[in-house]
Amino acid sequence: MCRGDDASCPDFDEHARQFKGELDAERRSFLKSGFAATSGAAALASGGISLVTPALAQASRDNQPAKRAYHYLPATAETVHWGYFSKTLKPRVEIDSGDFVTIETLTHHAADDLERMVKGDPGAESVYLWTKDKKGVNRRGAGPMDASIHGRGAGEGFGVHIMTGPVYVRGAEPGDILEVRIIDVAPRPCANPDFKGKSFGSNAAAWWGFHYKDLLTEPKPREVITIYEVDTTGSRNWAQAVYNFQWVPQTDPFGVVHKTIDYPGVPVDHAKTKRNYDILKGVRIPIRPHFGTLGLAPKEAEFVDTIPPSYTGGNIDNWRIGKGAIMYYPVAVEGGLLSAGDPHASQGDSELCGTAIECSLTGTFQLVLHKKANLAGTPLEKLDYPMLETQNEWLVHGFSFANYLAELGPSAQSDIYTKSSVDLALRDAFRKMRAFLMTTKGLTEDEAISLMSIAVDFGITQVVDGNWGVHAIIRKDLFAGTV
Amino acid sequence: MCRGDDASCPDFDEHARQFKGELDAERRSFLKSGFAATSGAAALASGGISLVTPALAQASRDNQPAKRAYHYLPATAETVHWGYFSKTLKPRVEIDSGDFVTIETLTHHAADDLERMVKGDPGAESVYLWTKDKKGVNRRGAGPMDASIHGRGAGEGFGVHIMTGPVYVRGAEPGDILEVRIIDVAPRPCANPDFKGKSFGSNAAAWWGFHYKDLLTEPKPREVITIYEVDTTGSRNWAQAVYNFQWVPQTDPFGVVHKTIDYPGVPVDHAKTKRNYDILKGVRIPIRPHFGTLGLAPKEAEFVDTIPPSYTGGNIDNWRIGKGAIMYYPVAVEGGLLSAGDPHASQGDSELCGTAIECSLTGTFQLVLHKKANLAGTPLEKLDYPMLETQNEWLVHGFSFANYLAELGPSAQSDIYTKSSVDLALRDAFRKMRAFLMTTKGLTEDEAISLMSIAVDFGITQVVDGNWGVHAIIRKDLFAGTV
Repeated sequence: MCRGDDASCPDFDEHARQFKGELDAERRSFLKSGFAATSGAAALASGGISLVTPALAQASRDNQPAKRAYHYLPATAETVHWGYFSKTLKPRVEIDSGDFVTIETLTHHAADDLERMVKGDPGAESVYLWTKDKKGVNRRGAGPMDASIHGRGAGEGFGVHIMTGPVYVRGAEPGDILEVRIIDVAPRPCANPDFKGKSFGSNAAAWWGFHYKDLLTEPKPREVITIYEVDTTGSRNWAQAVYNFQWVPQTDPFGVVHKTIDYPGVPVDHAKTKRNYDILKGVRIPIRPHFGTLGLAPKEAEFVDTIPPSYTGGNIDNWRIGKGAIMYYPVAVEGGLLSAGDPHASQGDSELCGTAIECSLTGTFQLVLHKKANLAGTPLEKLDYPMLETQNEWLVHGFSFANYLAELGPSAQSDIYTKSSVDLALRDAFRKMRAFLMTTKGLTEDEAISLMSIAVDFGITQVVDGNWGVHAIIRKDLFAGTV
Repeated sequence: MCRGDDASCPDFDEHARQFKGELDAERRSFLKSGFAATSGAAALASGGISLVTPALAQASRDNQPAKRAYHYLPATAETVHWGYFSKTLKPRVEIDSGDFVTIETLTHHAADDLERMVKGDPGAESVYLWTKDKKGVNRRGAGPMDASIHGRGAGEGFGVHIMTGPVYVRGAEPGDILEVRIIDVAPRPCANPDFKGKSFGSNAAAWWGFHYKDLLTEPKPREVITIYEVDTTGSRNWAQAVYNFQWVPQTDPFGVVHKTIDYPGVPVDHAKTKRNYDILKGVRIPIRPHFGTLGLAPKEAEFVDTIPPSYTGGNIDNWRIGKGAIMYYPVAVEGGLLSAGDPHASQGDSELCGTAIECSLTGTFQLVLHKKANLAGTPLEKLDYPMLETQNEWLVHGFSFANYLAELGPSAQSDIYTKSSVDLALRDAFRKMRAFLMTTKGLTEDEAISLMSIAVDFGITQVVDGNWGVHAIIRKDLFAGTV
C-alpha cells in the first residue's frame, strides 16, 4: 500500500486521505506545544512545557493558511545536494507555515554495500549513479568543482552528507525562528528482494574518528566499515551487525584512487575487501532513528561544507533529534531553506569513531514559522543557535565555535578542523544554557549558575565533525511548580 | 524511632531486629548480581547482567563468614578525616567481606548555615567545633600542618571533604577488587527543632568553578552560596532553594581571614552577609542523593588530597553513585580502607559551578571482597579504575589522568590542577571502555570501536575536581541476546 504519496497507486485518493488523517491524529497527540502552536489552545502558563507561548502560537497561526497542505519530497538526483548547504540553491518544494512535509533522506555511506542499500531503489540509484561516463550527482562537497586541491573529485568531498531539499518556507526572513517538528521517522526499506523487510546501515571507523591515532592492534592505522541490519517490519527495536571489512584503496569510476575514505559515494568493490561475518554475535543495538544533519542555509558563504555544525543547525549529530522532537532554528536567509540528511539508525553521545549507523530514513515534519516581530518577550527571542525540545527536556547545543563561519573569517571552513576541543564546546554550552535560563525563565545569573551545577547534564554530542559539540539538558519538570 | 542504631532507645533490640530484616529483604531484591554474589545462585550466563560471574561469586562467598555482621559508623570528630585519604589512618571499623555497614557522612559545606546543618546535631557539632581555643578536627587537607604555604590553616585546605572511615576489610590486599553495594541512602535530618522534617544543603558557585572567570553581571568575580532544602519525610522527591548570599571575607575563630572559599568549615558569620530569599521560586530540583567522594586509600602517598579522583575512586562526583549502584574499586593497600564523604542531594553532569547540593547523607553499604586469585578470566580481571554498575548500565570513569599520582610524579598533587582537560578525560574514557568491551565481552578492537560509536554515551562527569572526568555509559541490554 502506498502512503498517499504514489499517484500511480489505484487507491491513491483513499490512501492519501488515510495518511492525512493519521497525520492529524499524530499532530493532535504530538506534544502540548504542538497543540498550543497549531490550535491556539487555551493559555499555557509561561512556566509551561513549551518554548512557544500561547500568544506566540496564536500570532504564528494567524500567518498560516486556513488549510494545511501536505507535501512529499522524494530523494533523487534532482532533489538532493551533496555535501554542502547553500543559500543559492533552488528550492525543491515551497510550503506555508503549518504545512507537513515528508522528506526522504539517503545515507551517504550506501556505497559501502550497494547490494543492500542502493540496488533496486530508483531514488537511491539515481543519486548513486556513477559510471565511467556519468555521475548522477557530480558535486559532492563545498570544494572546487575541478578538484584542484586534492584531486578527489568535484567538490573535493569538503562536506559529505546527501541533503534532500531545500524546503522553502513562504514568508521566512532572517531574524525569524523556524520550528521543525519531527512527526515521524522510519527506516527506508531495502529494495533488493534478497533482503525483504530489512534496512541496512553502515558504520565507518574512519580517519576522522577520535580513536584513529590511538589503536591497539595491527594494522595501524586502519579504517573499518561495519554493516548493520535494521528491521523494518516494526517487530524489533534493535539493530545488529552483519559483517565488517577493512577499507582497502578503492578506484572510483573516474579512475581516482581513494586510499582512505576521502570522498563520499565511492562504490566499494567487494572483490577487493575481505568480509568478516563473525562479529558482534547476538549484540543488539537499541535503535535511535534520527537525522544527523538537519538545518537551514547559513548566510555567511555561498557553499558551506555540511560537516561542521553551526548556528543554523546542520550536522549536530544528536541522537535525540528523532521522532517527537522539535528543533528551533534561527532563519538566516529568505525562505529558511531547510534540508535534511545524514540519517542515522543509532548513535551514541560522542559519535566516537566518526560515524553512526548511517542508514537511509524517511521523515515527516511539520514546519511552523515564528516571525521576528512576534518573538519579543517570548523564550524564542534572540535565539541564535539550534535548540531542541523533547517531551521532557530542553537541550541547548554548544559548539567549539558557536558560529565558526563568522568567527574564523575567510578561512573558517578549513581552520575549523584544527581548532576544536570539547572544553571550548562546553564553554559555549554553558553560556547558552545560562542565557536560556536567564531569558526564558527570568532567572538571575546566580540562580542560573547554581541550577546548572545541580540539575543540568552536560554531554558530549560529537567529537568528529570539525566543530565539536557539547549539549546541555534541562528537565522541564524542574519548572512544574512555577506555574 | 531509632533504626536499630541507638542503644539508648528503649526498643533498641526490636528496632535492630527490624532493621536487619529490612536489610535482608533489600539485599534479596537488590540486583541479580547481589543475588549471584551472595547466594551463589544458579549460573548466570557470561553475557548476564553482572560483572561478577557465578564462579567468582561462589569463590568470594567461600571467603566470607557464615553469618554476616552489621556495623554502624557514626560521623564524629573521632571517626572522620577531613580533606585527605591516607593509607596511614587507623581503621574506624573492621569488617568481613559480605558485611553491611551504615556510614554517616557530613557535608563539608555545613558551616555555610550552621543553624540549619549543624546546630543540635552532636556528631556534626563535634566535627565542626571551632572556637578560639579549640578545633574539633584540626587537619583539613593534605597540606602542611603549620600552614606554611598559604597560611589558611592546618592541612591548608588541600582537600576539603569530610570523610567518614576508613573501613578496614579483613583480608583485602593489593590486587583484589572491592565491590561496594549501595543499599540505601538517606538525607540526614536537621537536628534543629526550628526545621523539623527537613534537611539542608549548600551549593557554592566558587572560584574553582567552570563559570568563575566568565561572569556576565557585576560584581566580577564573585562567589555565591545557595542554601537548598530537602524533605526528609519522604513525601517530596525534589529540593528547593531557600536563599542565597554572596561570599564576603570571613574571619575564622583562629583569626585568619578567608577572602574566598579557600578552607573548609570556616563558620559563616551571617551578620556580614546579605541573604536573598527571593530566588528560584517554585523551581523543583529532582533529588539524586549520592556520594560525591567514595573510595579507597591510594598507595602512592601518605596524604592524598581528596579533590582529584583517581584509580581508587574518591571524588568521582557522578550522581549515579547512589542507591542501588555498585562500585568496583581496585584495592591498593591492605584492608582497602574505604571512606565515604562529600554527600550530595543532587548534581548535574559537569558539576559546573564547583559543587553540588552539598547535603549530609547516611548510607548503608554491603562490601564484598573479590580476591585477586579468583579474578582470572572474569570481567574484573585487570580492573585498574573505579567502575560503576547500575541496574541497567555499566559505566567506566575516565579522568584527564587515569592515575595522576603515578603519572605526574612528586609534584602530582599540585600539578594536576593545571593540566586537565575534557579532551584528555574523553581519551581515557574511550580507552577504558574499549578495554572493558574487549576483555569483558571478548570483542575485537574493531567490534568495540564500532559499538562505542553507535551505542555508548560519553558524558562530562565534572570539570571542577582538578582531575577532570568523563564517563562512558553502556546499556546492559545490548548483550541480552548474547546469552
